[in-house]
Amino acid sequence: MDRRNVYIISGPAGVGKSTTSKELLKKLKDSAYISGDAVSHMHIGGRQKPWESKKEISLIWDNILCLTRNFLSYGNDVVIDYVTFPSEANWLFKNIIDLDVSVHYVVLWTDKETLLKRDLMRKKEYQMGDRCLILVDEFLDSGLDEKFRLPNCDKEPEAVIGEILNNGKFRLTESDE
Amino acid sequence: MDRRNVYIISGPAGVGKSTTSKELLKKLKDSAYISGDAVSHMHIGGRQKPWESKKEISLIWDNILCLTRNFLSYGNDVVIDYVTFPSEANWLFKNIIDLDVSVHYVVLWTDKETLLKRDLMRKKEYQMGDRCLILVDEFLDSGLDEKFRLPNCDKEPEAVIGEILNNGKFRLTESDE
Repeated sequence: MDRRNVYIISGPAGVGKSTTSKELLKKLKDSAYISGDAVSHMHIGGRQKPWESKKEISLIWDNILCLTRNFLSYGNDVVIDYVTFPSEANWLFKNIIDLDVSVHYVVLWTDKETLLKRDLMRKKEYQMGDRCLILVDEFLDSGLDEKFRLPNCDKEPEAVIGEILNNGKFRLTESDE
Repeated sequence: MDRRNVYIISGPAGVGKSTTSKELLKKLKDSAYISGDAVSHMHIGGRQKPWESKKEISLIWDNILCLTRNFLSYGNDVVIDYVTFPSEANWLFKNIIDLDVSVHYVVLWTDKETLLKRDLMRKKEYQMGDRCLILVDEFLDSGLDEKFRLPNCDKEPEAVIGEILNNGKFRLTESDE
């Protein structure tokens, strides 16, 4: 079996994580798509907002981790589509390092006006408003190494995917921890 | 922490598993909803039809199992909405028995005409046609103990939920294996 890959497609809300993930999946042979939002919403009664509850975010990442490990064990690459901070990406990396896998951490990046414009194009119940901009600041405050940022505004999806697949700089290594 | 519960809501396609699961969730305090179909469709590249591939069905159940264990560990009841045969229900039971949990196995049941009528009410791309009826026969051939069947045609959802919550006969025990 070839070495498997995990692609963590992160970035603030509205930056194009889902679109990019779906384009990326078209290039992978055996693959799985884990939407962090979908995993998060499996919790029904007693669910807290993940950004307000450490227990909730910990449950979400435990679930993403076990799914990722299973999909890898069955020979799949895995695309994770979720707002993921560096500490979370490194935690995941550390917990699958035994599986002979490369973990690519990509933080899509665009300007605040574009984020707000895209937010307004969503259905009302999915709009995040100011929380989009707060997320940008949280990424800036997270100690994120600039090399993991991938500016995607005015770029064709094809070009973005090309960078993710061919640019080694997104690969996490043990020195990133 | 109270003893937790896992409810496996099974039955042929079109019998009302999703509707019943959603009603049941309204009665539970801390809870999670695992749709087997949603878990199954996380696999993108290389996915086989689960009923034609042992490897695919094994991947799906490994994923359902790890999610179930996580949700239980965080104090939630779990509702699993999936076509589940007795051997699969018992496999799940055996693999979570260490967690102090009751597993309730409910196979919703109705007549073939009703199944076909409900199938036609779905969007075209979700219609299963004859596969609905094949599933009924597969359940009949699966060695399913009649006590796990819950006829739900002409019953109000409220009554169905009442039976699931209050009727001990759906609880799996080690002698069911």
